[in-house]
Amino acid sequence: MRVKVGVIGTGAIGIEHIDRINQKTQGAYVTAVSDINVKAAKEVAKRVDAKFFETGEALIASEDVDVVVVTSWDPTHEQYVLEAIKHGKYVFCEKPLAMDAAGCRRIVDAEVAYGKKLVQVGFMRRYDRGYIELKEAIESKQYGEALMMHCAHRNPSADENYTTPMAISNTAIHEIDVLRWLLNEDYESVQMILPKKTSNSHADLHDPQLLIFQTKSGVTIDLEIFVNCRFGYDIKCDVVFETAEVGMTDPAYTRIKSEEKNYTPVSPDWQTRFLDAYDYEFKLWIDSIKNDAVVGPTAWDGYVAAITMMACHESRETKTKVMIQMDERPALYNE
Amino acid sequence: MRVKVGVIGTGAIGIEHIDRINQKTQGAYVTAVSDINVKAAKEVAKRVDAKFFETGEALIASEDVDVVVVTSWDPTHEQYVLEAIKHGKYVFCEKPLAMDAAGCRRIVDAEVAYGKKLVQVGFMRRYDRGYIELKEAIESKQYGEALMMHCAHRNPSADENYTTPMAISNTAIHEIDVLRWLLNEDYESVQMILPKKTSNSHADLHDPQLLIFQTKSGVTIDLEIFVNCRFGYDIKCDVVFETAEVGMTDPAYTRIKSEEKNYTPVSPDWQTRFLDAYDYEFKLWIDSIKNDAVVGPTAWDGYVAAITMMACHESRETKTKVMIQMDERPALYNE
Amino acid sequence: MRVKVGVIGTGAIGIEHIDRINQKTQGAYVTAVSDINVKAAKEVAKRVDAKFFETGEALIASEDVDVVVVTSWDPTHEQYVLEAIKHGKYVFCEKPLAMDAAGCRRIVDAEVAYGKKLVQVGFMRRYDRGYIELKEAIESKQYGEALMMHCAHRNPSADENYTTPMAISNTAIHEIDVLRWLLNEDYESVQMILPKKTSNSHADLHDPQLLIFQTKSGVTIDLEIFVNCRFGYDIKCDVVFETAEVGMTDPAYTRIKSEEKNYTPVSPDWQTRFLDAYDYEFKLWIDSIKNDAVVGPTAWDGYVAAITMMACHESRETKTKVMIQMDERPALYNE
Amino acid sequence: MRVKVGVIGTGAIGIEHIDRINQKTQGAYVTAVSDINVKAAKEVAKRVDAKFFETGEALIASEDVDVVVVTSWDPTHEQYVLEAIKHGKYVFCEKPLAMDAAGCRRIVDAEVAYGKKLVQVGFMRRYDRGYIELKEAIESKQYGEALMMHCAHRNPSADENYTTPMAISNTAIHEIDVLRWLLNEDYESVQMILPKKTSNSHADLHDPQLLIFQTKSGVTIDLEIFVNCRFGYDIKCDVVFETAEVGMTDPAYTRIKSEEKNYTPVSPDWQTRFLDAYDYEFKLWIDSIKNDAVVGPTAWDGYVAAITMMACHESRETKTKVMIQMDERPALYNE
Repeated sequence: MRVKVGVIGTGAIGIEHIDRINQKTQGAYVTAVSDINVKAAKEVAKRVDAKFFETGEALIASEDVDVVVVTSWDPTHEQYVLEAIKHGKYVFCEKPLAMDAAGCRRIVDAEVAYGKKLVQVGFMRRYDRGYIELKEAIESKQYGEALMMHCAHRNPSADENYTTPMAISNTAIHEIDVLRWLLNEDYESVQMILPKKTSNSHADLHDPQLLIFQTKSGVTIDLEIFVNCRFGYDIKCDVVFETAEVGMTDPAYTRIKSEEKNYTPVSPDWQTRFLDAYDYEFKLWIDSIKNDAVVGPTAWDGYVAAITMMACHESRETKTKVMIQMDERPALYNE
Repeated sequence: MRVKVGVIGTGAIGIEHIDRINQKTQGAYVTAVSDINVKAAKEVAKRVDAKFFETGEALIASEDVDVVVVTSWDPTHEQYVLEAIKHGKYVFCEKPLAMDAAGCRRIVDAEVAYGKKLVQVGFMRRYDRGYIELKEAIESKQYGEALMMHCAHRNPSADENYTTPMAISNTAIHEIDVLRWLLNEDYESVQMILPKKTSNSHADLHDPQLLIFQTKSGVTIDLEIFVNCRFGYDIKCDVVFETAEVGMTDPAYTRIKSEEKNYTPVSPDWQTRFLDAYDYEFKLWIDSIKNDAVVGPTAWDGYVAAITMMACHESRETKTKVMIQMDERPALYNE
Repeated sequence: MRVKVGVIGTGAIGIEHIDRINQKTQGAYVTAVSDINVKAAKEVAKRVDAKFFETGEALIASEDVDVVVVTSWDPTHEQYVLEAIKHGKYVFCEKPLAMDAAGCRRIVDAEVAYGKKLVQVGFMRRYDRGYIELKEAIESKQYGEALMMHCAHRNPSADENYTTPMAISNTAIHEIDVLRWLLNEDYESVQMILPKKTSNSHADLHDPQLLIFQTKSGVTIDLEIFVNCRFGYDIKCDVVFETAEVGMTDPAYTRIKSEEKNYTPVSPDWQTRFLDAYDYEFKLWIDSIKNDAVVGPTAWDGYVAAITMMACHESRETKTKVMIQMDERPALYNE
Repeated sequence: MRVKVGVIGTGAIGIEHIDRINQKTQGAYVTAVSDINVKAAKEVAKRVDAKFFETGEALIASEDVDVVVVTSWDPTHEQYVLEAIKHGKYVFCEKPLAMDAAGCRRIVDAEVAYGKKLVQVGFMRRYDRGYIELKEAIESKQYGEALMMHCAHRNPSADENYTTPMAISNTAIHEIDVLRWLLNEDYESVQMILPKKTSNSHADLHDPQLLIFQTKSGVTIDLEIFVNCRFGYDIKCDVVFETAEVGMTDPAYTRIKSEEKNYTPVSPDWQTRFLDAYDYEFKLWIDSIKNDAVVGPTAWDGYVAAITMMACHESRETKTKVMIQMDERPALYNE
């Protein structure tokens, strides 16, 4: 069996995923594409020998499409995901799942009504080897309980359009999902602290930012968001256990001694750092579809991320610690 | 287009490659298998939904087979490779290509007579990220010329059947291929030196061994072979350039502080260390077949490896430096 | 000129300093000792060929004593330091300078009245190479301003007598001094957060603890105190600059590959980790005395540490962020 | 007791040692200096409050001098050391002990005739923490026997006066001494191999060079000498044991992430790299004198180094492996 994939949205990330499927994902191939930019989409369709559809809805309905990938403009995610659920087709949606928690909740409700998990959200960090090893260390209990996490998410630079709240919605969102997945529990509170601002930022962006999360069981997480760190793309996640510390590395394949430095390279950008994670994410997604049971980040995970982000924004605005409250989890999402 | 692969030899490595193709190699699938152990081969055929063939020759001749993978018993490699050439089919052959240099030479001759490169030898080190980065560093000349290499190939342990010459034919063979590929030149001489012997060996195995290679241009390589090092599987390759040193790492995804040690894990075995290299090797092999032009290690590379190994054995036996002499390279193998 | 040193307090740390002076500190030697434990002090005096004094006051007054080292029982520090000031003699006092901020203030007042800096407090972290390199990085501005610091102070284990407040007064006190020295500015606020508690602690000790400091200029510091981390003695101090991160290492002189681990040792205890810092502290103290101008941590630094510790305790008890308020710095301490 | 030190030779290294003794070496001070450059020596004498002597012989004979440091022009080492032996005074001599093996032998004979070890040679590598930890690992047998060593001695650059043989006499001499000290056994043979030459050298210097030593028990050592490596001063010494590898680090106190590099600094020169070793060498020398039993590198070690260097030169010239033959060790040097 080979899975026929329809892709809605042929911008940069859409094209990356199309090529990823056709060139690297055994057992799947792209049969259909659609985009509001018709010209671009038609060119892609021609290049990869796929069918062009005028609308996402038409693509979703087509018999040429077994499963759907949504990489369109953010505000359209919700409608396409809901449409796919209506047709009972598996759908992979890049983050954000919807524009707010309410939108995510509507997807959750539709999926619960349908009675089966169809949606996977594009939180690709869960497919990175470093995080996978951290999760194994946590779940094995070989070092006792996780007590604290020290994390950082650093980008070399952000442009003028990147404003203070985007440190949450575009950047911290990755840690918001992956850290609760690592710990297998939800956050209880969040507090934002604004450190000294770098001179490499602009008036509408307070950079860096520091977030303190506490989980239901008391695990305390400090997370630095710094999007103008200049020196590279740098992700830190050090888990402090009862008897050990385990931290992610920036994987290196060579070590260089040159010009009085003994170094490994720092990743220049997220594409380089997480390329393997994206590949593995799609491999496992297609494998899970063959088993008719998706196992990746769910619509509920998308909802929880949205709720948590709202609390982060509130903490920044009120300068207080904010409790994170959410609906009860539907039984569909209990593992 | 999906490439139909026939696999001759369904032992451990054969099964690994079958699963690798079916589960990870986009654009290819296994359609046919054969093995002297008929029962085992039939079971594999059934499990992966492939056709069983009584003989490798029948498999090679079949219309169900576009390309051939040879993972059978070493002494049969040559005959199957020659048979594939006769049918003008691409063939991937695990090392060794043949039992000696003369056998490799017969394959080279057959391929030259056919007039097209069909054979790829399973020197998978060339597909490891560390070696690829080293080759980029060498070819870029950004640090000047490579002058020396300090290498080690260490296995945790070897069994009673592993004897002194196998340090060359089973172990050093990987470096013999990959180092000349890195430098893009041939060896001029080799000298073996026998260091103090570990007490963790047996009467028929002198372990460790030290090889000194010099290339045509004078690059000097020391290569330690140590197959009872006990602490793990450890591959070192440090290239000394005119202005820098660049060395391979044992890639790590997490770093651990535990029990007064700050450590990254050492790979336990070659399967773990080079898993990604095997996957990438097959991906590129299938990709190259789609382009109808294989680009991996050639039959000529197999021949050169065989010649070089003979010189290593001679140096060990004569306790002298041995010059490495070989036939002129046929034009087919000039890039 | 050789400096004659009198040591009050011949317990463990007192004896260490006596031997440090006599064996490693060029230009000084111990001429006099005193301790409430007369028998032990007399034995030490005999061993190192120094004079025994019945009281610290008598020792301080003696012509055989140029300068004084106070390593007696904590509650007696203040009286001996004040006595040394009265005699116009330089005095090195192990932390704490006094039992509370009021006591430290009395010493400051006495010193200001005397009109010359005579007191040095034993904050030996300032003499560690790692911290010295961090200070050079900060002061050079080569990476721009320091914006954040991520710190940890971890001990392998604490005994039953170690209670929750001691995480501040015995442990965090080192960072409280050294971090403001690094940044050359005072703290504005502190907030304590209590993470999930390790099962390797007891009822009267909440371990670990997390402190968030903000300095006058906005530099934000997270400091983990974890005194039962089990894996070793581990001090982290990562400074996040506008264009770089610079962090302290646990210095290693060899690297070991053994039992599938590639590791450097983690220091087992603070004595091992900071041995060199203690030696350097005394060398520079004696050198500064020869120049008649002590340059190490002052009585004012002892006072600020005491004030800051009080704020930490208050934050823990009130579960709120606490502003740190102190007297105006006397002109004597302006550099 | 304070040891009165007379220093013959007030060039760069002489002045360094004078200041080292006066500023860092508890229990000793410089009382006398001498140099063929009278003006310079008198200035030094005045600055450090020492007596100037017209000749080294006069200095050695003086009652103001307990022990002698020889840092004069290399060809004068032998005569001053012999003179010190004549007066029964301890003498520390910078390498080389004499201009050739015969000169070293004369010193050995004089010392044997005197009947007591008085001479210490300035092989300061033995006082470096990394080497000390390696020696502990070797002597503990915790990883079994040492089987091989992989070593490198790299300088950033050498000037026009540095010629091919100096790679042995000025550079490899350090490893020649320290490696046999580590292993506690002598070399049996040496072979020099000349790798591809760097373009950053000149006509009279073949750089780099590779030396292969084998010890009496069969330990095999490869030693790269590369004095124009450009990237810094880099000393490698990796010991391969039966069950582990232990290697020296270039100690670092901070780690830096900057400009897409995650690095520790490489030492710029030997002064930086081995500063602590020099200090420790003098501390232990003075300590040993107080115990009236010097324990550092002996005149015999100086002789063995000279013999070994001759074999290295012969191997380079004859392009063959050379056996290393030496006199029997006098009983005075048996420990």
